[in-house]
Amino acid sequence: MEVGFLGLGIMGKAMAANLLRHGFRVTVWNRTLSKCDELVAMGAAVGDTPASVVAKCKYTIAMLSDPSAALSVVFDKDGVLEQIGEGKGYVDMSTVDAATSCKISEAVKQKGGAFVEAPVSGSKKPAEDGQLVILAAGDKALYDDMVPAFDILGKKSFFLGEMGNGAKMKLVVNMIMGSMMNAFSEGLCLADKSGLSPQTLLDVLDLGAIANPMFKMKGPSMLQGSYNPAFPLKHQQKDMRLALSLGDENAVSMPVAAAANEAFKKARSLGLGDLDFSAVHEVLKGTGGSG
Amino acid sequence: MEVGFLGLGIMGKAMAANLLRHGFRVTVWNRTLSKCDELVAMGAAVGDTPASVVAKCKYTIAMLSDPSAALSVVFDKDGVLEQIGEGKGYVDMSTVDAATSCKISEAVKQKGGAFVEAPVSGSKKPAEDGQLVILAAGDKALYDDMVPAFDILGKKSFFLGEMGNGAKMKLVVNMIMGSMMNAFSEGLCLADKSGLSPQTLLDVLDLGAIANPMFKMKGPSMLQGSYNPAFPLKHQQKDMRLALSLGDENAVSMPVAAAANEAFKKARSLGLGDLDFSAVHEVLKGTGGSG
Amino acid sequence: MEVGFLGLGIMGKAMAANLLRHGFRVTVWNRTLSKCDELVAMGAAVGDTPASVVAKCKYTIAMLSDPSAALSVVFDKDGVLEQIGEGKGYVDMSTVDAATSCKISEAVKQKGGAFVEAPVSGSKKPAEDGQLVILAAGDKALYDDMVPAFDILGKKSFFLGEMGNGAKMKLVVNMIMGSMMNAFSEGLCLADKSGLSPQTLLDVLDLGAIANPMFKMKGPSMLQGSYNPAFPLKHQQKDMRLALSLGDENAVSMPVAAAANEAFKKARSLGLGDLDFSAVHEVLKGTGGSG
Amino acid sequence: MEVGFLGLGIMGKAMAANLLRHGFRVTVWNRTLSKCDELVAMGAAVGDTPASVVAKCKYTIAMLSDPSAALSVVFDKDGVLEQIGEGKGYVDMSTVDAATSCKISEAVKQKGGAFVEAPVSGSKKPAEDGQLVILAAGDKALYDDMVPAFDILGKKSFFLGEMGNGAKMKLVVNMIMGSMMNAFSEGLCLADKSGLSPQTLLDVLDLGAIANPMFKMKGPSMLQGSYNPAFPLKHQQKDMRLALSLGDENAVSMPVAAAANEAFKKARSLGLGDLDFSAVHEVLKGTGGSG
Repeated sequence: MEVGFLGLGIMGKAMAANLLRHGFRVTVWNRTLSKCDELVAMGAAVGDTPASVVAKCKYTIAMLSDPSAALSVVFDKDGVLEQIGEGKGYVDMSTVDAATSCKISEAVKQKGGAFVEAPVSGSKKPAEDGQLVILAAGDKALYDDMVPAFDILGKKSFFLGEMGNGAKMKLVVNMIMGSMMNAFSEGLCLADKSGLSPQTLLDVLDLGAIANPMFKMKGPSMLQGSYNPAFPLKHQQKDMRLALSLGDENAVSMPVAAAANEAFKKARSLGLGDLDFSAVHEVLKGTGGSG
Repeated sequence: MEVGFLGLGIMGKAMAANLLRHGFRVTVWNRTLSKCDELVAMGAAVGDTPASVVAKCKYTIAMLSDPSAALSVVFDKDGVLEQIGEGKGYVDMSTVDAATSCKISEAVKQKGGAFVEAPVSGSKKPAEDGQLVILAAGDKALYDDMVPAFDILGKKSFFLGEMGNGAKMKLVVNMIMGSMMNAFSEGLCLADKSGLSPQTLLDVLDLGAIANPMFKMKGPSMLQGSYNPAFPLKHQQKDMRLALSLGDENAVSMPVAAAANEAFKKARSLGLGDLDFSAVHEVLKGTGGSG
Repeated sequence: MEVGFLGLGIMGKAMAANLLRHGFRVTVWNRTLSKCDELVAMGAAVGDTPASVVAKCKYTIAMLSDPSAALSVVFDKDGVLEQIGEGKGYVDMSTVDAATSCKISEAVKQKGGAFVEAPVSGSKKPAEDGQLVILAAGDKALYDDMVPAFDILGKKSFFLGEMGNGAKMKLVVNMIMGSMMNAFSEGLCLADKSGLSPQTLLDVLDLGAIANPMFKMKGPSMLQGSYNPAFPLKHQQKDMRLALSLGDENAVSMPVAAAANEAFKKARSLGLGDLDFSAVHEVLKGTGGSG
Repeated sequence: MEVGFLGLGIMGKAMAANLLRHGFRVTVWNRTLSKCDELVAMGAAVGDTPASVVAKCKYTIAMLSDPSAALSVVFDKDGVLEQIGEGKGYVDMSTVDAATSCKISEAVKQKGGAFVEAPVSGSKKPAEDGQLVILAAGDKALYDDMVPAFDILGKKSFFLGEMGNGAKMKLVVNMIMGSMMNAFSEGLCLADKSGLSPQTLLDVLDLGAIANPMFKMKGPSMLQGSYNPAFPLKHQQKDMRLALSLGDENAVSMPVAAAANEAFKKARSLGLGDLDFSAVHEVLKGTGGSG
């Protein structure tokens, strides 16, 4: 199978390499072309522009850093739109907002092309290991065509129906995650202030019905007050806000998520927005604050 | 090693049987003596009364159904107190409130005996499989003596320091669990009302950083509105209340747990207290309620 | 002083009448012109179109029912924009969202005119009695010119600075009001379920430090389950949401407002959105809801 | 009418003086007898002990500083119990917990006497002005006999039924007050962070439907960060906790009060417990706290 691949950041490079390793012919493009070298050494071809990649390949995957890069690659001169059309498919796996995704989808479809949004759950390590979780939505036929690629990139892919559902599913998951982080932090604080060892609480939790990778991974660093940003708090809070807005549209009352969101907002007001989202622990354990 | 074992309910019988299987000499007692037969067939001796078991054994373990049974076995005629004393240890593994635990502890210590409270996390299956998690506190020397037994009964035992810490640790864990259940339910409702498949949400969650046994076990039945009481909602709410009280004593602010507690209270007011604690899902998804 | 007055609904008619009674010369316009008759009988002149009113008067006040009416009167054919310009002022006292207000402001200013937004607090009775509270923002010189009119229309007017501040101030007030309504409802429920007379609670509240007109006015009808919409619940919830969004922008953590908002959302999900906002009481007292 | 009066602190002295001024014959007692002088100058008689006052008077009112003083006056040597009996009534207007009140009630009734609890709402000034609000419960016949005295001491008295209802009513009122204080503080913070003048917000609030004495009195000092303790925060938080417990008993879900309570707890954890309860404003406006 042949695919184009736009964007060779940390995630994109790992993903394109996996496709090559599994026998795909891959034509890559990156804004800084030198980043292609490593993949060329693995057998990749290089396209000069997004347009030339799309011209050459029936299917093109993009993995870009943010909404503005995602839009630029499509709409700018020499962009995807210039060559997309009947019989060609475009798959954007970047994490972007619904508006960005819809704008790209409509432009691609107007040219006769097919579009799938496919944001992923998982970061660098899962990308390297082909263990991403892929939340796809949009054109079902294109999704079906892409399954062989998704099977290499991820441990599981889901087709979630109409455009926007990929992004929504991510919001729901992140909302639950944000509330859980608060519940976890409250428990650590309660243990600590009640004369129990928070470290022992971690051990007990890890043996029980609510044991989960996040508690295991984040717990020890939270106890040390160390918050290297794997997922920045300001992004977590933005996702809580968007999930609450989605709930508002549909009249879903979510008091626990609302309480968690206010704690994340408090963390932002304390200047913790660029730390890991587990830094909300500072809000909950804080004994300062009366400044 | 020789131990006495008081109480052969579902949990106690499984635990005593495990001790026998691993070569312990066990003298059992149960209020309804016929319940001892199965264990006698496995090699157990039988005591006529709690007192006679304690008279015979250096160490006696109790696993009783509730605080009143736990008190009765100790304080009634022919009870533990009549024979406990210097050189003997009593280990209560029942789940009881702090007041009950302290009352027993003081009475045993006044007689010169040693006492350990050791509530467990885990129910029937883990008891049978020797996979309980044991949260012990009280007399450290007695705890150390009991480690060989705890190693058979549980996958892990913790010594948590002073009396009461076993019960407190359970409260903290259950509080986190209760908040997580609410976060989970809110996510399921949001997915459902937003046009996503809640079943798919379960699948996505199970592949990610917050995957945990509780979501996996409770999710499918919650989607069916089925709430067979593994852990009754009214007990979960009681534990939330007690955990919040513990936080109040120590001035720990826990807004997410407080919001979750109010949802559990709402569930109680709807008459769901005897169902499983996952029945809080009915509150969150409910579209009735305006009386 | 001479002013134009656009919009003779319940509020507008009462306001224009007050200006006439206090010696202002007023030129009125209303979409349904027959509504002008009563004011003509009091001495008003009539304009054929918004444009003709603006052409005639240095200052024009508008009091329209909703954002679409507010936009239509300005931007449609024969609208305000056709005649507004240097030396003329336009004052919109309608309650509209910030985007509507800004759109009108920019268009008026581009033509060289001056603009003030001046939403009011108070409904029919205060409008008739000249007892409105006027929350003005925008062009300070125009505000100063309007003070004689505002002094007739309201018991007090505030100049709040830059455009948008009038709407923001209303949001803040309504947010406090929405939280208070929830606090009040919770108290009524607690009294009722605890064996106290909610009616007596109303009497006690009315004698103390938190006595306020809203409790006095809404309490008796809430106890009867009667919620004639003076301020529809869906609008209250929208204002809570917008106030929380404003807080989000500025990283202000507001857990009580967030909890109140979730209760209003629950009320919307129960189909109570068109009743008075005090109908949130049904959520709080509700013993149904498990659908 | 003749009454005994035990306890001449700030409140008690003002109350006893009012009774004298309105023609009551009053026999006073105070632990420090010299405090009786001023009232003697107004015509009061003096009793040597609580017992002697009760011996002399058919009705005796107590206004003591705390539960331990309330108990001491009744149960100690020369206390109320020694002379109370058939045909005599004892009215405790102190603010005490339910347990204290019940203990006194039972002892008095066992001796054949009648008892009314009658905590008041209002402090020094209302006591001097005879403007207290009296929340009475217990023996209805005794209450009826006391109405002439209550009419002098308060602007209104309520008979609330069975013992304990006076204290409960106070809890409900204080719970609403605590939630309102949080709503108010959140609004002040939102105004401030959104570029509005909090002082203007106070002015706007004072003109509208939610204007109330508490906002008017506390607002200006809160803006200055000044929290002279009229009602200490730790007592407000205790009352929130007790009201939430009362709600828990009766399965009343109160999410706004729960959120407010967590903010008061946070304030306690910051060491603000001895300041006025309006000091919760420091929690909400705080931008420190990551200590």
